[in-house]
Amino acid sequence: MKRAKIAHLFRIEPGTRFRSKDHPTDYSDAQPLRHLSGAELKERARDYVQRNLEKLSRAQELLYANDVYSVLILFQAMDAAGKDGMIKHVMSGLNPQGCQVASFKVPSAEELDHNFLWRYQRHLPERGRIGIFNRSYYEEVLVVRVHPELLERQKLPPGSRGKGFWKERYEDINALERHLARNGTLILKFFLHLSKEEQKKRFLERLTKPEKHWKFSAADLAERAYWDDYRKAYEAAITATSTPWAPWYVIPADHKWVARAAVSAIVSHEIEALGLKPPQIPPARLKELEAARRKLARE
Amino acid sequence: MKRAKIAHLFRIEPGTRFRSKDHPTDYSDAQPLRHLSGAELKERARDYVQRNLEKLSRAQELLYANDVYSVLILFQAMDAAGKDGMIKHVMSGLNPQGCQVASFKVPSAEELDHNFLWRYQRHLPERGRIGIFNRSYYEEVLVVRVHPELLERQKLPPGSRGKGFWKERYEDINALERHLARNGTLILKFFLHLSKEEQKKRFLERLTKPEKHWKFSAADLAERAYWDDYRKAYEAAITATSTPWAPWYVIPADHKWVARAAVSAIVSHEIEALGLKPPQIPPARLKELEAARRKLARE
Repeated sequence: MKRAKIAHLFRIEPGTRFRSKDHPTDYSDAQPLRHLSGAELKERARDYVQRNLEKLSRAQELLYANDVYSVLILFQAMDAAGKDGMIKHVMSGLNPQGCQVASFKVPSAEELDHNFLWRYQRHLPERGRIGIFNRSYYEEVLVVRVHPELLERQKLPPGSRGKGFWKERYEDINALERHLARNGTLILKFFLHLSKEEQKKRFLERLTKPEKHWKFSAADLAERAYWDDYRKAYEAAITATSTPWAPWYVIPADHKWVARAAVSAIVSHEIEALGLKPPQIPPARLKELEAARRKLARE
Repeated sequence: MKRAKIAHLFRIEPGTRFRSKDHPTDYSDAQPLRHLSGAELKERARDYVQRNLEKLSRAQELLYANDVYSVLILFQAMDAAGKDGMIKHVMSGLNPQGCQVASFKVPSAEELDHNFLWRYQRHLPERGRIGIFNRSYYEEVLVVRVHPELLERQKLPPGSRGKGFWKERYEDINALERHLARNGTLILKFFLHLSKEEQKKRFLERLTKPEKHWKFSAADLAERAYWDDYRKAYEAAITATSTPWAPWYVIPADHKWVARAAVSAIVSHEIEALGLKPPQIPPARLKELEAARRKLARE
């Protein structure tokens, strides 16, 4: 399948309503793959990801040499959906000099004393760079919406905390992303879409395999109890913030190889679609280079 | 050659005087390699770097899982010595989630209004992470020493700008590094040692090959005129700041494959030498995990 088609397939078209159940979490049984065995699929996916990473690596060099655009890639998902593994496997081939990852944990007191977008903005990528957000400002309309007590800590001015409040937050996020896009940031937003069943399987693995114990936190199980509230919060947020300048991609995440293949295809394709060429050297600069060459050769 | 031996070979022993001419910039004709052809050497070096990168990648996982130590790797060198290529080739295999690169350019007005170490400190790696400095606070005793007019811009209180002034700066740097080491940062400092001849060759290449034009800046040639001043500044700085808690490594840089082989060996070896093990799970935590597993299985 062409990468453009993959991007189209998983993109939430701006203005349409995102409903979780309309989108697969599995994709291993999709038509074009149906004739392959499990091992063949994984093998093929690995090769495919590898080829996309080579494309991505070349695209990154052009991005860096041009120094005009930046790329913000953000991942949101339920726990155990594979965000960390995605970053490790799909982004490890990048030149670390042009790539930065920010993970957002519990906010500090200083951060809580600012507007809700403040702490994320200082981690935005510079021109020429790729910035990856492991969780993002979307947490401000996800975990904060599911747990309104977190909102209390933000010490906001008195006022409604109803539907209008969240609509305003979506509006603020859309306005920020529009501003970034206008100023040269390509924004790619991925929701790794995991089934409740698959999460259970992965949690049990973390609980039974000693080498995976460190990945499990008691909070994970507590959050799982809010599964349906999160689902609704994701549906509302993705519906409201899939825009022409920053669309959402909903990626089937029950199989890691499916998710990695899709994300590597979309990221490499969308950066290439910026159409960057090696930077042109202006004539005045060429003269300057020639003068320097002569001076150095005479040395 | 064992990696420990390579580290020993290129380390500047604390308390000894570093003189540029006592250290090779070439190393391709060293005894153990003498029987190999150029192509064989490069091929072997590539394999060797690859094996070290696999070790480095495993060491990084332990670093991250333990979340106790951080690693600061800094590169200093004359222009065209290969800092960017080193970071690209030796660090690309790392998980970008646990690795960050900071490049330091001309300081901003806000940065100049602070103490000379301020702007570097905000880029120090967090626990569990590897931070790479492409140039570093050592510029404050290198470029600033060669061009005293830069010092004027730092608006320091009146006082001597003689030898004592630089001694104080070395002392401040040593104290910062000691503080970092005490608090769990492993510090690895590399001087990529390039000959003046090889720099000329690389500059001419940038001036004649169109695809390398963008790497050349007129300032590079201007700085080359200060070669000897830089040499002296490096000798003084490295002599004064190679300490037991943060030794310098002087790496022959006339051949990129030599430099990359040496740096990959030293970095992987020194991180492994922290002796990290997979984190132990305390009994109380094991009980908690078992309770969670039972709860989840009942679901």
